[in-house]
Amino acid sequence: MLMRPLIARKRDGGRLAHGEWRHLMQAYAAGDVPDYQMAALAMAIYVQGMDPDETSALTDAMLRSGRCLDLAHLTAPRLDKHSTGGVGDKVSLVLAPLVASLGVVVPMMSGRGLGHTGGTLDKLESIPGFRTDLSLDAARRQLEHLGCVLIGQTAEIAPADRKLYALRHATATVEAIPLIAASIMSKKLAEGLTGLVLDVKRGSGAFLPELERGLELARTMIQLGADRGCPTVALLTAMDRPLGHAVGNALEVEEAVLALRGEGPADLLEVTYALGTEMLLLGGVAATPAEARAMQCDAIASGRAAAVFQAVIEAQGGNPGVVDDPAALPQAAAQGVFTAPRDGVVARVEPRALGNGVTAIGGGRTRIEDPMDPSAGFVVTARPGSHVRRGEPLATVHARDHATVQAGLRVLGEAIVIADEMSEPPLPLVSHRVTANGVEVLATPSA
Amino acid sequence: MLMRPLIARKRDGGRLAHGEWRHLMQAYAAGDVPDYQMAALAMAIYVQGMDPDETSALTDAMLRSGRCLDLAHLTAPRLDKHSTGGVGDKVSLVLAPLVASLGVVVPMMSGRGLGHTGGTLDKLESIPGFRTDLSLDAARRQLEHLGCVLIGQTAEIAPADRKLYALRHATATVEAIPLIAASIMSKKLAEGLTGLVLDVKRGSGAFLPELERGLELARTMIQLGADRGCPTVALLTAMDRPLGHAVGNALEVEEAVLALRGEGPADLLEVTYALGTEMLLLGGVAATPAEARAMQCDAIASGRAAAVFQAVIEAQGGNPGVVDDPAALPQAAAQGVFTAPRDGVVARVEPRALGNGVTAIGGGRTRIEDPMDPSAGFVVTARPGSHVRRGEPLATVHARDHATVQAGLRVLGEAIVIADEMSEPPLPLVSHRVTANGVEVLATPSA
Repeated sequence: MLMRPLIARKRDGGRLAHGEWRHLMQAYAAGDVPDYQMAALAMAIYVQGMDPDETSALTDAMLRSGRCLDLAHLTAPRLDKHSTGGVGDKVSLVLAPLVASLGVVVPMMSGRGLGHTGGTLDKLESIPGFRTDLSLDAARRQLEHLGCVLIGQTAEIAPADRKLYALRHATATVEAIPLIAASIMSKKLAEGLTGLVLDVKRGSGAFLPELERGLELARTMIQLGADRGCPTVALLTAMDRPLGHAVGNALEVEEAVLALRGEGPADLLEVTYALGTEMLLLGGVAATPAEARAMQCDAIASGRAAAVFQAVIEAQGGNPGVVDDPAALPQAAAQGVFTAPRDGVVARVEPRALGNGVTAIGGGRTRIEDPMDPSAGFVVTARPGSHVRRGEPLATVHARDHATVQAGLRVLGEAIVIADEMSEPPLPLVSHRVTANGVEVLATPSA
Repeated sequence: MLMRPLIARKRDGGRLAHGEWRHLMQAYAAGDVPDYQMAALAMAIYVQGMDPDETSALTDAMLRSGRCLDLAHLTAPRLDKHSTGGVGDKVSLVLAPLVASLGVVVPMMSGRGLGHTGGTLDKLESIPGFRTDLSLDAARRQLEHLGCVLIGQTAEIAPADRKLYALRHATATVEAIPLIAASIMSKKLAEGLTGLVLDVKRGSGAFLPELERGLELARTMIQLGADRGCPTVALLTAMDRPLGHAVGNALEVEEAVLALRGEGPADLLEVTYALGTEMLLLGGVAATPAEARAMQCDAIASGRAAAVFQAVIEAQGGNPGVVDDPAALPQAAAQGVFTAPRDGVVARVEPRALGNGVTAIGGGRTRIEDPMDPSAGFVVTARPGSHVRRGEPLATVHARDHATVQAGLRVLGEAIVIADEMSEPPLPLVSHRVTANGVEVLATPSA
């Protein structure tokens, strides 16, 4: 196809028609459009934007470049959650089995960690033997049996998005709201959902730190879902600090297992329950938020949620023993304790510094093909606002050797800021709820 | 090198430092930066622009990615002319030998036709046997002997520009003034010049039709030349109509030969003399414009200019007989005459329609690897403002067969517009003179 006129039109602020997006993404998926032309177009889109019709057309074009999960024969509601990505965000590992244990079908497709944020696939693969590369047919069979599957974006799902996503990462064209929204929704809509809940992070550790940009992304995705018969709700949650205590792949699986037993950190459980409530309401499983919350507490207290996680791990080739004994997860050879360097209050726990720090001590990737140490990471018990005394333990480093632990302690020294007083209050954990009807403010910061 | 932060900075309207441009273009020339990252950067530059320091740094970076012609041992002035490209623009073929015959060394490096404009290399290669792919060493030896060489951009000259130019063509990032200026000047400065004259086209057939954009390009290139010890002067000339009568490779060589004998169309000779005057003044060969003009007329009348062209053709492997008898050039098998469809005045002769029409009848390329019929083209004797009678011959088509001639006649029917009266006066042939001191208006349109 003739790419130059399309690139030139977008470059000059014009728009591409529905059929042009469809042909373009088909040709790109088939290898008939070179990466350099798509890169020029992506940059033109980044700078000039896309109108809602174009974003919608691009979403459809990417969705139709591949296959979809056909789950229409299932009578249960089919729901998923997507997070825009954060540090310590292991909600998916808790939420998917929890909601599945309440009769919802959860065909969850996740990504890998890139940049400072972790990825659910990397976390899952720290469970010995766990496979995330199931075919769509295998995923469908598992959903029929267990009501839950935890997989990666296969080659069958939205291949045009898969190629474009990698290209955007290499060409500094990631943080464009229409491109983010179309990328997420083309994958999620391929799951054959009856509803979708979005966890849009805000604050210094989020991809889009500013509230207004987060709201714009939420509204864009909600509209794309609504137009395609997939009711979508978004919660804006705090990422000015890590979620929970653990940051690092195996450490986060361990924390998720604790949460599924009801022993998890309060903030992790709170965000999980809030998102789970939206899913249960969307699926018609609960009639009120209070009922939804009570159902979730019961599923955890009774052990049913943990049992679903164990069954999913076993079905996908992993060692189910990690649910009974997290010590079966990879363990770091060396540990070190970070103590408060002075008396004061914890003013900040910087998620970006911690996320990049995990990569620095071997627990993350800078390139997709890099090797990774699943046991490396941090457990940060210090929370913003806590008063601490000099020498008090605030966090631990887990790494492959003593030298790497020392590097990790330096990361913690940068990430954990002790001051005389808080300079600004932490963001509310769950601050806004966005639906097709508008934005509801749930909480505002308080000192 | 880490490309993403550089792309992101330019994307957000920031600037790259001198050393960053140097490393970047070295890495790109060496194949260490993939085309897709350079394409994203080119689009960011297109939309966000570059400041004069950056344009200067990019010019140096591309210049230094390759070798330069070392002509410092020659005592004669070393001058070249560059045109931004037009339809029927065969000035280089006349000007280079003309000025060389007056003691100037002319190391002229030209390009191929792309889009609607012709290329000097394609015209030269219509001379049987003519080779434009000389090495820099061979070019230097010919300059020592003959004072003139007519070559293409070799692999040794500004290889980073060569790659970037091809990429820009494929990614709709050509018409950005800083990129155009840096591309032209990195090649011209590699010729080791003591001065440079620019022919900046304006009007509907120019790459930058608007006067203000042409002036901006001229000023940008003049500054780049001045900063590097290469005094540069620009003339803005008319491209709202073809220059001369002939459009098409062999036909244009024939017209250039006629001009070197003093028999060329008046507008072609006028533009040639105007540019030649600037070269002779820059080189200190003539003291005044009147003297420069008289010297050029004499070089043509005496046959010395034509003799230099003949010697250059012979030295570069071509058939020198074409200067004595242009019938030795490739001849089209079929011709057709286009006559005026009505009484009236020639309101327009559209250069873009003619330029694209040459390609349509086989005389140009849409891709660099396409074959080409050097004999195909048009000879348009109708000039804007001429009063014509129905049935009067206005132009001829030269093509490979009768069907192609018919296609050419349809092109002429679109390109030559007969009306009751002129809607707007043609642009002055040479309208502005731009130097480091400012812009001088030489002529304004008159009805």
